[in-house]
Amino acid sequence: MNKPTANQRIVLLGAGNVATHLGVALQQKGFPIVQVYSRTRQSAQELGEKLHTDFTTDLSAINPDADIYIFSVKDAVLPELLDEMDDFSGLFVHTAGSVPLSVFEGHASRFGVLYPLQTFSKNRVLTFDHIPIFVEANFKEDENLLKEVAAQLSQRVIPLSSEKRKYLHLAAVFACNFTNHMYALSSEILEENNLDGSLLSPLIEETAAKIKELHPKEAQTGPAVRYDKGVIDRHLSMLNGDKAAIYEIVSKSIHRRSQ
Amino acid sequence: MNKPTANQRIVLLGAGNVATHLGVALQQKGFPIVQVYSRTRQSAQELGEKLHTDFTTDLSAINPDADIYIFSVKDAVLPELLDEMDDFSGLFVHTAGSVPLSVFEGHASRFGVLYPLQTFSKNRVLTFDHIPIFVEANFKEDENLLKEVAAQLSQRVIPLSSEKRKYLHLAAVFACNFTNHMYALSSEILEENNLDGSLLSPLIEETAAKIKELHPKEAQTGPAVRYDKGVIDRHLSMLNGDKAAIYEIVSKSIHRRSQ
Repeated sequence: MNKPTANQRIVLLGAGNVATHLGVALQQKGFPIVQVYSRTRQSAQELGEKLHTDFTTDLSAINPDADIYIFSVKDAVLPELLDEMDDFSGLFVHTAGSVPLSVFEGHASRFGVLYPLQTFSKNRVLTFDHIPIFVEANFKEDENLLKEVAAQLSQRVIPLSSEKRKYLHLAAVFACNFTNHMYALSSEILEENNLDGSLLSPLIEETAAKIKELHPKEAQTGPAVRYDKGVIDRHLSMLNGDKAAIYEIVSKSIHRRSQ
Repeated sequence: MNKPTANQRIVLLGAGNVATHLGVALQQKGFPIVQVYSRTRQSAQELGEKLHTDFTTDLSAINPDADIYIFSVKDAVLPELLDEMDDFSGLFVHTAGSVPLSVFEGHASRFGVLYPLQTFSKNRVLTFDHIPIFVEANFKEDENLLKEVAAQLSQRVIPLSSEKRKYLHLAAVFACNFTNHMYALSSEILEENNLDGSLLSPLIEETAAKIKELHPKEAQTGPAVRYDKGVIDRHLSMLNGDKAAIYEIVSKSIHRRSQ
């Protein structure tokens, strides 16, 4: 633990969006990424080549001498990987919002979480500077180590329990995934009517910008606030597929909170 | 119609968010706002004073000599107002996304629409420069006049039929009002768990920024994409009120589009 933070040798397990963005960012800050593991050869190779490092699809070939093993795999896959990995002395860390720290119990002696709260897409450049990173570990020294590692990436590093983190992740599903789906449904309506999708850009930007100054409940506008039945019924009659059901339930939910 | 555009004398009917933002912006561009009407005295007076102009709550006292009458009132109120306003020779214009041009038929000889596609909140400064403004009129000369007026406010002025405009407005409800409601539900979850609302700001910004480069369907991430039942069931068990029903219907809708 007396090694300087930036010399921590890292193995990445997983080669998806989070692993890729995190691997690139850690390497840029000087951390040696000594190996990349992925179940699929193509993913392992792509990320290995991107980081100019060793890659493998074989769990038994994982480098046993790394300092930190970062698991960025699908939630359901993590326990399967852990079942096959014994006798590592390095710090095991996952990056998932909804997986408790306790997932590592019985599989490692030192373990932690490093959860960057952001939506990661391949082919999209991101800087970590302002992305909040939430850390947790079973030993205080490892929590401190993860704080130091995370502080190399972001100005906003926050220790957070698994219990709190799972609610944070749930809130993020609404604020990010569900918001993005509203954009997707909106795009469908435009496309079905041969209207240019970019027409909504200023509206989308302002909707996101506004809530930095106003609470979203104060910022709400539109027909659902006062449940303008004339407009709402006309809108429902214009919608196809599952959009009508979503329109109705969300409008009622808006109205309920504006009374 | 030979009067220069910027000399068009304007009466504003309505004193809500759209009327206020539009009135301020038009006045800044040099248009004389000769009168403000609102049913409620306080609103009429507030906007009248803000624009240093005459205000009234009496429809029979509306200035008969204005060039343009801009109606920014609730959709259901517009027909009631029109029923009581006869014998005006000026151009009647409304600013609503979902109200057809034909609402004016039988109530005026010259009429049009000037629809700024944006979410307007009081106490929030906005510039119109990049806000798309959609115009329509029953005479070509008046459509041209509205184009010129709108061009004083924004670089993006687009003639659009009532039929197309109603779908644009519907798409905007999803992209703005429903998106904002996802922020509101997300805030509720954070508040219920004593988590700081600003933690989600970088995520919300990136979610909005990402779709300038990626189609929202390409940009989607999170448990609903592959319908990760483990995570989704855990999330559903953590939700109260109407949030569980919304979570479920939106997750299914995301999954359906990612297959």
